[in-house]
Amino acid sequence: MNELLDLFAEPVLAALPRLTTAENAVVRRELEEMQRGDHGGTALLDGLRKLAAQVPERLYTDSADVLLRMHEIAGSGNHQSNLSSLPLVRACFALNLVDDDGGGPADLIVGRGHIAPAFYAENYVRGTLPFTPLATLHQGGLTGVVHRDLGFGNTMRYSLGVGVAQAVSLAWDLTRRGERRKVVCLAGDGELHEGVTFEALRFAHDAGLDNLVLVVDANAKGIEPLAKPVNTGYLSAYLGRLVEADGRDEWAVEAALGALLALPGPAVLVCRTRKGDHSFKPAAAVGSGTSLPRAPFASATGQMLAAHRESTGREPAVFTADMAARFGLRGHVPYTNTGLAETLTVGMTLSLPEDTLKVVATDAMYYMDSLSMLTEATTSARNLLVLAGRSWGAWGGAHNAVNLLGLLLHTRVYEPVTEAEFAACLDRLGRNPATTHVLSMVDARFEPPARDCAADVDGSVWVTPPGVKGDGGHTGRPDVAVVTFGYAGVLVAEANRDLGVPHLHCAALEPRLDHGVLTALAGCERLLSVEYNGAEGGFGERLRSRYLLPVDVHAVRRDIANRVHPRQLALHGMDPGRLRERLAALLATDSREAGRAPAHA
Amino acid sequence: MNELLDLFAEPVLAALPRLTTAENAVVRRELEEMQRGDHGGTALLDGLRKLAAQVPERLYTDSADVLLRMHEIAGSGNHQSNLSSLPLVRACFALNLVDDDGGGPADLIVGRGHIAPAFYAENYVRGTLPFTPLATLHQGGLTGVVHRDLGFGNTMRYSLGVGVAQAVSLAWDLTRRGERRKVVCLAGDGELHEGVTFEALRFAHDAGLDNLVLVVDANAKGIEPLAKPVNTGYLSAYLGRLVEADGRDEWAVEAALGALLALPGPAVLVCRTRKGDHSFKPAAAVGSGTSLPRAPFASATGQMLAAHRESTGREPAVFTADMAARFGLRGHVPYTNTGLAETLTVGMTLSLPEDTLKVVATDAMYYMDSLSMLTEATTSARNLLVLAGRSWGAWGGAHNAVNLLGLLLHTRVYEPVTEAEFAACLDRLGRNPATTHVLSMVDARFEPPARDCAADVDGSVWVTPPGVKGDGGHTGRPDVAVVTFGYAGVLVAEANRDLGVPHLHCAALEPRLDHGVLTALAGCERLLSVEYNGAEGGFGERLRSRYLLPVDVHAVRRDIANRVHPRQLALHGMDPGRLRERLAALLATDSREAGRAPAHA
Repeated sequence: MNELLDLFAEPVLAALPRLTTAENAVVRRELEEMQRGDHGGTALLDGLRKLAAQVPERLYTDSADVLLRMHEIAGSGNHQSNLSSLPLVRACFALNLVDDDGGGPADLIVGRGHIAPAFYAENYVRGTLPFTPLATLHQGGLTGVVHRDLGFGNTMRYSLGVGVAQAVSLAWDLTRRGERRKVVCLAGDGELHEGVTFEALRFAHDAGLDNLVLVVDANAKGIEPLAKPVNTGYLSAYLGRLVEADGRDEWAVEAALGALLALPGPAVLVCRTRKGDHSFKPAAAVGSGTSLPRAPFASATGQMLAAHRESTGREPAVFTADMAARFGLRGHVPYTNTGLAETLTVGMTLSLPEDTLKVVATDAMYYMDSLSMLTEATTSARNLLVLAGRSWGAWGGAHNAVNLLGLLLHTRVYEPVTEAEFAACLDRLGRNPATTHVLSMVDARFEPPARDCAADVDGSVWVTPPGVKGDGGHTGRPDVAVVTFGYAGVLVAEANRDLGVPHLHCAALEPRLDHGVLTALAGCERLLSVEYNGAEGGFGERLRSRYLLPVDVHAVRRDIANRVHPRQLALHGMDPGRLRERLAALLATDSREAGRAPAHA
Repeated sequence: MNELLDLFAEPVLAALPRLTTAENAVVRRELEEMQRGDHGGTALLDGLRKLAAQVPERLYTDSADVLLRMHEIAGSGNHQSNLSSLPLVRACFALNLVDDDGGGPADLIVGRGHIAPAFYAENYVRGTLPFTPLATLHQGGLTGVVHRDLGFGNTMRYSLGVGVAQAVSLAWDLTRRGERRKVVCLAGDGELHEGVTFEALRFAHDAGLDNLVLVVDANAKGIEPLAKPVNTGYLSAYLGRLVEADGRDEWAVEAALGALLALPGPAVLVCRTRKGDHSFKPAAAVGSGTSLPRAPFASATGQMLAAHRESTGREPAVFTADMAARFGLRGHVPYTNTGLAETLTVGMTLSLPEDTLKVVATDAMYYMDSLSMLTEATTSARNLLVLAGRSWGAWGGAHNAVNLLGLLLHTRVYEPVTEAEFAACLDRLGRNPATTHVLSMVDARFEPPARDCAADVDGSVWVTPPGVKGDGGHTGRPDVAVVTFGYAGVLVAEANRDLGVPHLHCAALEPRLDHGVLTALAGCERLLSVEYNGAEGGFGERLRSRYLLPVDVHAVRRDIANRVHPRQLALHGMDPGRLRERLAALLATDSREAGRAPAHA
């Protein structure tokens, strides 16, 4: 067992070409040390600290420089969010709050989940982290989201605003146990739009918790600028003492926070900070002459909605939970940014005229805290289109999200992969306004497939029909087939290119298969379904349940990790190599592929 | 078509024995008028108004008296909630806000969903509603929850706090259309605990909406008393002008609200009111010597948790979203009332020590706006027990709730129907602390079944084994069987008493059936599954998907309505008569029962 090598060797070797000579040299020395000894011990963090002590040379002494290098090497991330919080992070270090042994004056909960890199950068300049992990950020090594394993008091995973709830949970538990320590919660002003943060602060106040200190990075920006600055009247109504500080001045923050920790009772410190663009863009990509790859499918949503508006003459009411950029809305359709408040975003559709096309755009995962409100909307609102962004990358996209949406009342779920399929879904909504249409919108970049379900979005289409010869000389045998859902069809078509396995593509989570197709599938000896989606209650299981077809379900069985898309694909067995293996196994004549028991065996 | 007769005749005839002589006479005259003419017209409300004009005699002139009579006749409901809001409701009438033709000075959205009876009572004394519907409240005739069909500007269904979102949606739409009308939102102070109400008020403020007037019935009580009074600092931080009025004085409310409507800009009116017990208890039941029926199963939860605490010596941390009474917690285990804030209730478990048994108790439906937070908890918290109250009565219990909970990561769902099964679930959690155990807790009253799955909660047990003769002389034929989930097993056992259909009971939403059982089921010519639960993605469909067993799925296919339990049962085909029919059809030798296509037909 060599945990550090297992975790960091591969991604850091891949990153070497992007490192400076000096960084390269340090990484090589750190790799040598890793190979020499076992840094695993009991905790990842201990191993990293030991390694930092073994290679003490520091390449940078300012954590802002380290942050920039981390993002330059990664090529992506939330550089500006990290920068905006960096003085706050430094103040936390100065006040001895960043400490996993409970020895500091207070427990720290970091609610701004994606500012973990600021802590890593500061740890680096302080000599308590080596350089190697920093060079693997977002590349399968170091996660950019706070995690207990890396020295934080909490782990962030799914829910925006969860940090404030974690802090109140901790403050309640300390109070109950009679401990007098305070809890410092580092939150963002955008995150405070989330209803659960209010639920937590209201409860903390009403339960009389006197040990919570909320520190707000008030940079007046989520992904888009906030409509109004954070409301201090609201915060002081629940937390009492409210102090403002210049958040760009770490000494000012340290002094104010130190004072609040020394005073009795709850408090809030509003740090006025500044933040640039939400997502990091490599300098080389800005204005360079190199051709950029095709945009992610989801980012064409604005254009596709504009085309629908043009063709129907109907003005849609579009609400987005701070995700106009992700869906490419600006300049194409008017929209209302509701901030980081997904439940309200859904609720905004409830009192609009029946005929208005109502579009709600957020991440599929973020709907998970709004399913009751969404049921209210799917039951009472007509002409409702729910866009469920599907990022399988570093953040977002819980694997069961689409299946949960698929269980709602009066709802049909589709995952379009061409503009024509998207348009067909909107046409279908026009014909069936009482049914909410949920569109899983894939963030990935891909070439549109040659065939799609635009002619019948509820049906299916043979991408490779049975009986057609594949390029590799295999016949499109009628006794095997693969059935795919949405984006998985694109991935399978690629993997199947020289195999010629009969391949049926569906855009609907629960397709209606016609007699001819069912007869063909029922005649197969081996059937595989593939979806880039949770297995449980998903496309394949619905085929089994609805048609009693003995399909082997190839789907996502573990949760998403904090990985970029290509690494995420491999994690879930959706990379071309693994898919090709599964398809090839269908063609093997000697043995039935191992998979789920097809029946009551 | 005679809509009024269809809707009210049956329930009002059933109510006749509970009416006074005078009420009886009026109802008979109204029934005669209903039989004579068609009161349907275009809208239910118009028919009711016409009927009220035809039988103009008023039995009561004070709406408080009408409210009391409605609840006495119904035998249940939220009498005190209605009383607490009655002066506010009267003020709304006086200010001409209760008007479905848009002629009033503002649009009214009623967020306190269950105070519809106060409006009906006031309409009655004003001569715009007849008496008959009032006598059918909660009995399959008149719903107690606000509904557009009955003269309200909004309909309440699922989500607590939805009214404030509906009001903000409307205020936004009016603003966008350049209309200067205001929106009055009638909300409760408990309801304002819900995060979505904050999301809505924050958005209204930040979007600069100047046409929202929030009226708060501040009775300082949800189901339990609130820990603290409504926070006026918070409300004025978002709504600006805040006025308080004595909410027990209808003139004071009318004057204040009238003034706020005349002034420009948003505002909030806090009405201090008083409320008695949340649920209406018939006078006869209080202190009477008659033996009360067995308590609902869910209400024994406190006792069952206490027994577990006793046997393990482990102190649980119990959080409930205002539902201590429903689960019978008081006096049995310590608990923390988190108010009407379900997401926070789940979030409260996040920072507690691993070993602590964490119990979260709320309604299954209310978790639907917390599934992301719940996923956070099921992933990070150990020893987590989620109690999902299951009321199929007048409020709560969306039919897909348990199936949605069953799709969460690291979760197993059970529906125990005996104390031993409940205890077995807790034991299982003790052995598998990383798996969240969700227990669907049935609110119904029933005798515990003779056999249960306590010995293996993941398995199954034959209630009526194959080959055993039923009382009615039918043989327990080995070629048919019924498989049931949780509470449905109790209902089916009753319906099956004299039929002797082989009956397999499961406590797990996704049971693990052993080889012997599977062989028996696979040998059946006809298989039926029954669950008092949504069909889609439920117990029966999981049997089909997992084992490819061709079961006909008998389950809930429509949403809950606002009916009491016995009427709800019939609505979903779960009444003894309908269940007996389904079971008898299994035994019919001549034809296969019509049902879902068993395979790809």
